[in-house]
Amino acid sequence: MSVPTPAPTLIRDGARVRILDQTALPHHRVTLDLDSLDAVAHAIRAMQVRGAPLIGATAACGVALALHDAADDATLEHALTVLGATRPTAVNLHWALDRMARVLRPLPPEARFEAAAREADAIIAEDIATNAAIGQHGLALIADIAARRPGPVRVMTHCNAGWLATLGHGTALAPVYAAQAAGIAVEVWVSETRPRNQGLLTAWELREAGIAHRLIADNAAGLLMARGEVDLVITGADRVAANGDTANKVGTYLKALAAADNGVPFYIAAPRSTIDFACPDGAAIPIEERDGDEVRVLHGLDTGGGTAQLRIAPADTAVGNPAFDVTPAAHITAIITEHGVFAPGALATLAS
Amino acid sequence: MSVPTPAPTLIRDGARVRILDQTALPHHRVTLDLDSLDAVAHAIRAMQVRGAPLIGATAACGVALALHDAADDATLEHALTVLGATRPTAVNLHWALDRMARVLRPLPPEARFEAAAREADAIIAEDIATNAAIGQHGLALIADIAARRPGPVRVMTHCNAGWLATLGHGTALAPVYAAQAAGIAVEVWVSETRPRNQGLLTAWELREAGIAHRLIADNAAGLLMARGEVDLVITGADRVAANGDTANKVGTYLKALAAADNGVPFYIAAPRSTIDFACPDGAAIPIEERDGDEVRVLHGLDTGGGTAQLRIAPADTAVGNPAFDVTPAAHITAIITEHGVFAPGALATLAS
Repeated sequence: MSVPTPAPTLIRDGARVRILDQTALPHHRVTLDLDSLDAVAHAIRAMQVRGAPLIGATAACGVALALHDAADDATLEHALTVLGATRPTAVNLHWALDRMARVLRPLPPEARFEAAAREADAIIAEDIATNAAIGQHGLALIADIAARRPGPVRVMTHCNAGWLATLGHGTALAPVYAAQAAGIAVEVWVSETRPRNQGLLTAWELREAGIAHRLIADNAAGLLMARGEVDLVITGADRVAANGDTANKVGTYLKALAAADNGVPFYIAAPRSTIDFACPDGAAIPIEERDGDEVRVLHGLDTGGGTAQLRIAPADTAVGNPAFDVTPAAHITAIITEHGVFAPGALATLAS
Repeated sequence: MSVPTPAPTLIRDGARVRILDQTALPHHRVTLDLDSLDAVAHAIRAMQVRGAPLIGATAACGVALALHDAADDATLEHALTVLGATRPTAVNLHWALDRMARVLRPLPPEARFEAAAREADAIIAEDIATNAAIGQHGLALIADIAARRPGPVRVMTHCNAGWLATLGHGTALAPVYAAQAAGIAVEVWVSETRPRNQGLLTAWELREAGIAHRLIADNAAGLLMARGEVDLVITGADRVAANGDTANKVGTYLKALAAADNGVPFYIAAPRSTIDFACPDGAAIPIEERDGDEVRVLHGLDTGGGTAQLRIAPADTAVGNPAFDVTPAAHITAIITEHGVFAPGALATLAS
């Protein structure tokens, strides 16, 4: 049984990039046509598209879009600069833009749009293949647990690193989908992931796929692990440093600590493009601080007829809102990549 | 400068118990008059009153209320049973009910109402004094940090263990109020505390008191400690086992793990009545599982004219909603009680 193909998160189409607006999900399925560089940059900043691999591919498509009508050096450099400034932590953004720049800068302007389109399409195709490979490598870990005891394998995840975060089947969720396709029963603990509630996206994905899951407040993760109700944790990543320290959605570090304290294996699932070999360790990863209203105001609530935003704390409440945290390599069992499963200390073999 | 007296969370008045409805806070100040045993039991179950010490005092007042018109054995035992079944984790509830039972059972019915009223009032008065003593013992810890370096002392707390959770100045927040009164600058990191958002109660209390604070998503606690932005953590407790293992609002354990991983001292502030010497360790503490709608539906939102409840996840989404977790004694620096500050392993000196 193969893994069913999800709806596309992104379609590149000439002078247009069509996306699923993830700020309307899970309540409403809204498609947006982005027809300018600024619209693409806004979509990334406002998290209409999100997830490190999807951000990278969207940025690549944004470069192609920017070059559709004019592809002189100034236009190319402007596009790279604008898109590069949208979000600081996820390295896939910079990886994709560097890749586009490497291909496009040497070309004459008249050849750039077609080359950009080809390269963006290649990034998309590679991400689909990468997701599939991560799924198979992660499946082996899940199958190992399933072979050792009866009952569903209980996976905990954080944020959304499913198909919504990528071009294929996801990173952290790819092994879950692969397990379902292989006939292995899985049950997923889904963390709400405040303040942006991306856990609701994960719950929605899993419901669509018919995979058993339970939604929890982020605070509940420790108790569930202490009680022995979690077999393994798998999360995605926004940037993995050369030493294995990993930046991912804020709250990941707390789950890793609870996993370590309770002997639960803790895995990061991420493509090779998320590993930043130029970044020696977690201290060198920039952490995005987002608007305090993400904490003060609840977004994307279903009101029956649409979505609403509602205030939960006064507008002048001081807020700290870091979007990511860093999990030290010491708390990571292994990193599941498209090339295999690597201990954090063994990433150097992937550097070349 | 003395600590100012907050508004009362509870007033016992003959055949009535007047409470602040904490499900309407922080947006609206609603006072409820509870005039029956069932109304008191409902208020505890629905968290209109909450916080271990306040739950205990409310239950004591509920016993008095139940005995106002008739105080035969059946009425007394019925009141003790109904109130004892409201919430399983906070031991102060059972401590207060046991204390009422010990006083009232030997008395003839006609003497019971007055004795119950006297005992409930004593519990209230003692809690005020206990809070003040906890504040002074905790103040010494804060003053130690203030003496060692410039700038405000940065306290992180979880849930609400302020005056709203007690009859006096709170448990975890009593040292913060005492520090303010002593002229020591403090700044409080306030965790949102999903799913019930009691952090908003803490933010409201601190705002009313003019104490600097910043609201954060629960997920942010680890990063802030790793960055060195937290000097100490103080939380309340719902039950401390004889060995020092401590049940408190779910998510406390994750903060304790992050504190231990980053060398940040982690304190529990709780009255002697929260220590359950009959409970050998954390594994013996019952953990309340609450309704899944607390996670699926957001409560107490301000809509301008009132409060609203809004759905964030479909009604048939499976949910795990444990209300508490257990922090192992090994991760607790010390427990701040009205009798002084004790290492978790040294609680036995308080047993007699």
